[in-house]
Formats: sequence, C-alpha cells, structure tokens
Amino acid sequence: MRAVDIIQKKRDGGALTPEEIRFFVAGVTDFSLPDYQVSALLMAILLRGMTAGETAVLTDAMVRSGVRLDLSDIPGVKVDKHSTGGVGDKTSIVIAPLVAACGAVVPMMSGRGLGHTGGTLDKLESIPGFRTNLSMTEMRSSLSSIGCALIGQTAQIAPADKKLYALRDVTGTIESVPLISASIMSKKIAEGIDALVLDVKCGKGAFMKTPAAARELAESLVAIGKSAGVETRAVVTAMNWPIGFAVGNANEVIECIELLKGQGRADLVETSLQLSERMLIMAGVARDRADAAARCRRALDSGQALERLRAIIERQGGNPRVIDDYSLMPQAPGEHVIRAPIDGFVTELDAGLIGRASVALGGGRDQVDDEIDPAVGIMIPATVGDLVRKGDAVLRVGYRSEERLQDALPLLTQAVRVSGSRPPAVPLVMDEVM
Amino acid sequence: MRAVDIIQKKRDGGALTPEEIRFFVAGVTDFSLPDYQVSALLMAILLRGMTAGETAVLTDAMVRSGVRLDLSDIPGVKVDKHSTGGVGDKTSIVIAPLVAACGAVVPMMSGRGLGHTGGTLDKLESIPGFRTNLSMTEMRSSLSSIGCALIGQTAQIAPADKKLYALRDVTGTIESVPLISASIMSKKIAEGIDALVLDVKCGKGAFMKTPAAARELAESLVAIGKSAGVETRAVVTAMNWPIGFAVGNANEVIECIELLKGQGRADLVETSLQLSERMLIMAGVARDRADAAARCRRALDSGQALERLRAIIERQGGNPRVIDDYSLMPQAPGEHVIRAPIDGFVTELDAGLIGRASVALGGGRDQVDDEIDPAVGIMIPATVGDLVRKGDAVLRVGYRSEERLQDALPLLTQAVRVSGSRPPAVPLVMDEVM
Repeated sequence: MRAVDIIQKKRDGGALTPEEIRFFVAGVTDFSLPDYQVSALLMAILLRGMTAGETAVLTDAMVRSGVRLDLSDIPGVKVDKHSTGGVGDKTSIVIAPLVAACGAVVPMMSGRGLGHTGGTLDKLESIPGFRTNLSMTEMRSSLSSIGCALIGQTAQIAPADKKLYALRDVTGTIESVPLISASIMSKKIAEGIDALVLDVKCGKGAFMKTPAAARELAESLVAIGKSAGVETRAVVTAMNWPIGFAVGNANEVIECIELLKGQGRADLVETSLQLSERMLIMAGVARDRADAAARCRRALDSGQALERLRAIIERQGGNPRVIDDYSLMPQAPGEHVIRAPIDGFVTELDAGLIGRASVALGGGRDQVDDEIDPAVGIMIPATVGDLVRKGDAVLRVGYRSEERLQDALPLLTQAVRVSGSRPPAVPLVMDEVM
Repeated sequence: MRAVDIIQKKRDGGALTPEEIRFFVAGVTDFSLPDYQVSALLMAILLRGMTAGETAVLTDAMVRSGVRLDLSDIPGVKVDKHSTGGVGDKTSIVIAPLVAACGAVVPMMSGRGLGHTGGTLDKLESIPGFRTNLSMTEMRSSLSSIGCALIGQTAQIAPADKKLYALRDVTGTIESVPLISASIMSKKIAEGIDALVLDVKCGKGAFMKTPAAARELAESLVAIGKSAGVETRAVVTAMNWPIGFAVGNANEVIECIELLKGQGRADLVETSLQLSERMLIMAGVARDRADAAARCRRALDSGQALERLRAIIERQGGNPRVIDDYSLMPQAPGEHVIRAPIDGFVTELDAGLIGRASVALGGGRDQVDDEIDPAVGIMIPATVGDLVRKGDAVLRVGYRSEERLQDALPLLTQAVRVSGSRPPAVPLVMDEVM
C-alpha cells in the first residue's frame, strides 16, 4: 500500500477502505508517514469529506493507536459529557459532582483552553493544590469511592490524535467535520465509558456558527459513538454570549460552587440540568426526564452535589476549604469596571470577543504552551435581556497588569451593547440528535 | 504573513494575492516553509484551482527563484518548442536542426523521461559521447555559431520548481492545470527565449485524455507565456499511439536521422513540420505557413537540416559518424518479433502500454534515479490503419535481458490489435491556441 495512492483516491473524491485508513493512522502513530503526505491527505479529507463509515473507521483506528481503558470492573454505568467549546462554559464542574451525587459513575477526561474557549483542566487547577494528572490507579480508586474523577488526557489515550491535531493546527485543516468528530470521539471512546452526552455549541461564540453546521457535527458524533458501542446523544445549545456570570478560571470555579449552593444564574443552571438529566437517564439512574429532574433537584437542595465537589477536590489534592472561603482562591489584584452608557437592555455580549479579552488578560492561551494566570477574568453582572441603569456595571474586569488590561479593553467595549429595546429570547436547546 | 492563513484562504476557494504567492515560493526556495505546509497548500490549489492571474504570478515567482537567462546579445529571435510528453515523440531532435537550418535560433532545454513517456536528453545521450550538460558559455557559443543547443535544465533554472515537483510527486498533487502550467512555463521563460510553440498531447497515451482538458492546459500555458512577454502558441495534437516507428532511445535517434535523410514516417514528419512552421513564423523567418513549409522542404531536401544535426552532435561531443553508420549506436543484443495473428488492419497501438513496455525493457524510468539502457526499445513497422498480412511483424522488440523481455511482452501483446475493418483516420492537429 502506498500513501500517494491513498491521497490520490481521497483527492478524487473516493471513499477510503478500512485498510487504507488504518495504514494511514498507523503511519502517523509510528512516524513512518512523512508529515507532508499526512497534511496533503488531511487537506484532501477536508475538501472532499468522508462518509460516516470512513469517519467511524478513522475514529476506531485513532482509538487503537493507544489504549482503550477497561472500567468494566467498576460497578455502574460510566457516563461522560463533552462540550465542543464555549466561553464561560463551566458546566463540567457542576455536572460531574451533581451526576455522581445522583448515583452515576463519571470518568471525566477534559482538555485545556486554546484560543477564545476555556478548558476545564485550567479552571480546576486554579483551586490550590488540585491535581488533574491522576494515575490510572488513582482514577479507578476515585471512581469506586466517590463516583467521579476529573482528569486530563494521558499520553496513552489516542496518541494519533495528538499528532494529527498539531499538524492540522498549522496546515489549515482544523475545520473538517469528519476530522473534528474523529478527534473528539477517539478520546471519549478510549476513556472506557458506556454512555456519552455531547453538548454541541452553536452561535457566534462557537466553532459551529449555524444550526445546520451544528446538526451535521452532532449527527457525525452520535453516529461514531454508536458504531463504537457507546450510547451517545447530542444536544445543540446556543453559544452567542458567555454562560453564567464568570469568564476566566478561579472566578468560574467560584461560580460553580455558588450554583451548587443554590445561587446559580438561570442559563448555567439550565445548561447543566439539561445535560445532567440526559446523563442520568442514559446511566439507568432515572426513568425519564421528570424523574431525572427531581433527582437533580434533591441533590442540589440537600447539598449532596456540593459535598460531592468537596470530596472530589479533597481526593485530587486540592484545598476543600475554598468551598467556604473564596479568599483562598487566586484573586486578581486590580478591577476595572465597564458601565452602562445609558438606561436600557443588554442586547449583546459577544462571546468570541469576551473570550479573546480573557486570553489578552492572561486567562487563556494563544499557543498550547502559554502559561495562564488563574486569577484574572471577567465578571458579567447583567446578561443579555437584563435591564440596566446608566452607570451600572456591565462588566467587571479582574486584571493583573495594566498593559494587558489595555489590550483587553477595546475587545470588551466592542463586546457589550446596551439599547432601548428588549432583545428576543433565544431558546437554550436548539436541537437534539439521539 | 503566516503560511496557515494562506493555506486557509486557498482552502476556502479564495484567490491569493501576489504577495502571498511570492511568500510561498520564497519559502519553498529557501527551505523556510516546512514541507507539510507546502503540501497542504498544493492540495488546496489542486482542488480549488487558481485564476489565470494567480498562475501567472506563481510562474513568475518560480522563474525568479533562479536566474532568467539573457540571450539578447545573440542576434535573432530565440524560439523553442515544448511537448507535454508522449510516446515515441522524438520531434525535438528533428525540429531543432531543421528550424536552426532555416535561420532561427533554438536554445532548447529538454528533460529526461519519467514513467511511460520518454525524454529528449536520454535519447540524445544514446549517441556515443554526446554531452547535454553544456556550460552557459558553451551554450551561447553553440547558439551563435550553429543556431542551436540541445541541453538539460541547470540548477539555476527555476529551483523552486524542482523542489515543488518532488513534493507533488509523493503527495498526489501532480494533476493540477495551474501547477503543471507553472512548472512547464517557469523553466521555459527562464531559458531567455522570445517565442515558444507548445505541443499539448491529447489522448490515451497523454496526460490529458480529453480535448477539453487539453484545451484548458493549452490556454493556461499560452496565457502565462504572454503575461511573461514570451510570444506563445499551443497546438493540441493526438497522442493515442506512438509517433513514428521507434520507441526507445538509440532507435529514436536513428529514426530522426532517417527523417532528415527523407525517410520519415508521415505522422512524425507532419508533427515535426506543424511545429517547425509555426516556430519559423514566430521567429520572423517565414511570412506565413506556405512560406514556412517551403523553407522546411528546402532545408530537408538540400540536406542542410541533416548537416545541422551533424554539427550539433559534433559540437556537443558526440560522434557525428553515427549519421552515416548506425552500427556505431548502441544495439540491443536480442530481438523478439510479435506478428499479426490474422490478415487485417492495425486498429490499436496503445501508447501508454507501449511506453510502459519500454520502461520494463530498461529504456525508461520508474524512478528519477533509475539507470536507462539506450539500446533497448520497440520498433513499430506498421502503424494504425496499415494493412498487415497474417505473420507480418507488428512489433519488433529489442531487448537485453530475457527476464525484462518477459515483463514487457504481456504489455505489448495487449497493446496491439489487428482487425478486419479499417479504423477511422484521426486528425493530427486537434486544436490550436494562440
């Protein structure tokens, strides 16, 4: 089998055989295929597409490039959730303890932030002492005892994806539904889960800008999950403005703790519940949505979900006292307030610009090896549709350096709009694939 | 400027700016762009295309990656011809001395054979002692004294093309009209010529299989030539079966000498004259086609064209006595004859298969660094449309090794067909772009 023949076949719009796809992924994994052939094939795949069958085989080959965890000795249905990336999207830190408190097992492997979207690992690591690099033994032990572990991807999980992603990043081959799908699903399938809920973000702050594009990705992801024997559902949710009132790292963790204490903002609560309820049904814990909703409500109201987060933090080396004393979390030394110029409704909070401003402040990454500052971030006291008075704070910017603040401010002033007429309400869940 | 932005622009179907194209070619030439970005862009160009304007800039940037010869101190219009590659196509070895004998200056830079198509340099080097690697001083001296030089491309001519071609060969990005056009024309423009006649081959034995594809390439080539200030015309000629009666190297040189002695087969004579006449008009030597035809006829009948070939061979270190004594040329030790199975007309002589059989015998190359055997080859006593009797020779195979003969024979028996009905005549010149 010759790489150039495989490239030409895809270039001419043909469907690759399983053998051809496995040859390609094996060549990527063992470095026997030169990067210039890999990138030519990636571009051909981006422009010519892949069938659902090809994408499933690609994903499977990427899973097999590393290990697929076997969690079958841990009792219960293992269920995870994955989001395609938003701004202020901290639902993982709410959902993992909530769903575990309801009785499902949640082995959650998350990523780091890149570009304007944040990452769960970065947020968790703002808790003093919190370790996301648990060993497999530690992870199993956490799953058995507290039903949850929040960890990063290990080097054994889909190593072909790591290499392919790095090459896609510099060759203009990120924006391909089959390649995105295989990248996401190979890592999730390798986790050893039984069920998966996907949160496909759609809107100005998301990679998928239109409902049609989001549905295409959702369908591709669900088809792959099913073909790999993982029960998979996807919800398409709106991502036009940030979720909740915090964008950053430490401030997002505090927001999650507040939600678990009963002080969550409606959009974050609703997103977290929509996903958690589906996870409980798929885990066999709840009979239906009403049952799942009641279980979530009880776990929240009783404080069990909050206590589960405390257990997770303690178990993963973090200081659990942050739950009661937010001053133990990193604090930004400076605060700059952006105020409403007139009386009116908040009509715009551009998630893309706010995400980029968070990166500018030091709270995110432009490059994968950038350091992040967990303390800085943006608080959003009023969300879209809220009425504000002239002079009210619409954004509170926590910053460390004056220079970085000056980089962020033009983005933020452009991101917010206050106007005389109330904006139309937008439904959170736009679509669902199951 | 970032390579990934240029790749994404072309990926999304945009037209690249001159600055972007020059950045790309400069990065290829000085090795600052990694191959994986170059190959991703090549694939995007292949699948998204380039405008005529982009292709002209690409060609110009490739010319500027090396030197553009200045032959303006040599009197007369410098005119060359280039063929896109056929089987048994030895017209360069007829045209160069013929057109020079008529008074034009012909600085002809040729290539080597690759795959099923032969190369002029390989054919010329079958003449004992013949050197194609003349220095620039030797080339100028030949042009001044005998009006002609038959040489190979030097390292100073379009070095970006050499690198790009090697990468295209292994990344499935050969078959792109803009990339093919820029590759051909960058080398021709860098030769320092004033005028160029292109022979775009079309048919089963050519890269361009359909008249539409051949016309597209012809138009692209002519547009580039004009934009670079080189007067350019293209003729599309049929390449379904080999031209003339010889396929190989030494045997093709002998066929050219025979033609210059007045013993040429009609198809080779007509192809050579069609191209030569246009060259003479563009060089300002002839007023029109009738005048050009008369001049060619006189140069042939008087022996001046033959004597010009003798002068070329002598000047380039070859043994000019080969013209009178073919036994001085390499001879294949063995001959195998394929005979007509029935009385009938030759209806098929598949150029692609015969070209591949020549490679199998050792007369061509699968890889650029393969050695070739100048002595072996295939003689075609009867061409398509000729009447043959059962038992007549239809192919005479000159071979060195029995093993290679056995590789070639299945291809050759498949390549020839003799049938009861006369095949329709096919016109040689199918189209013209000027």
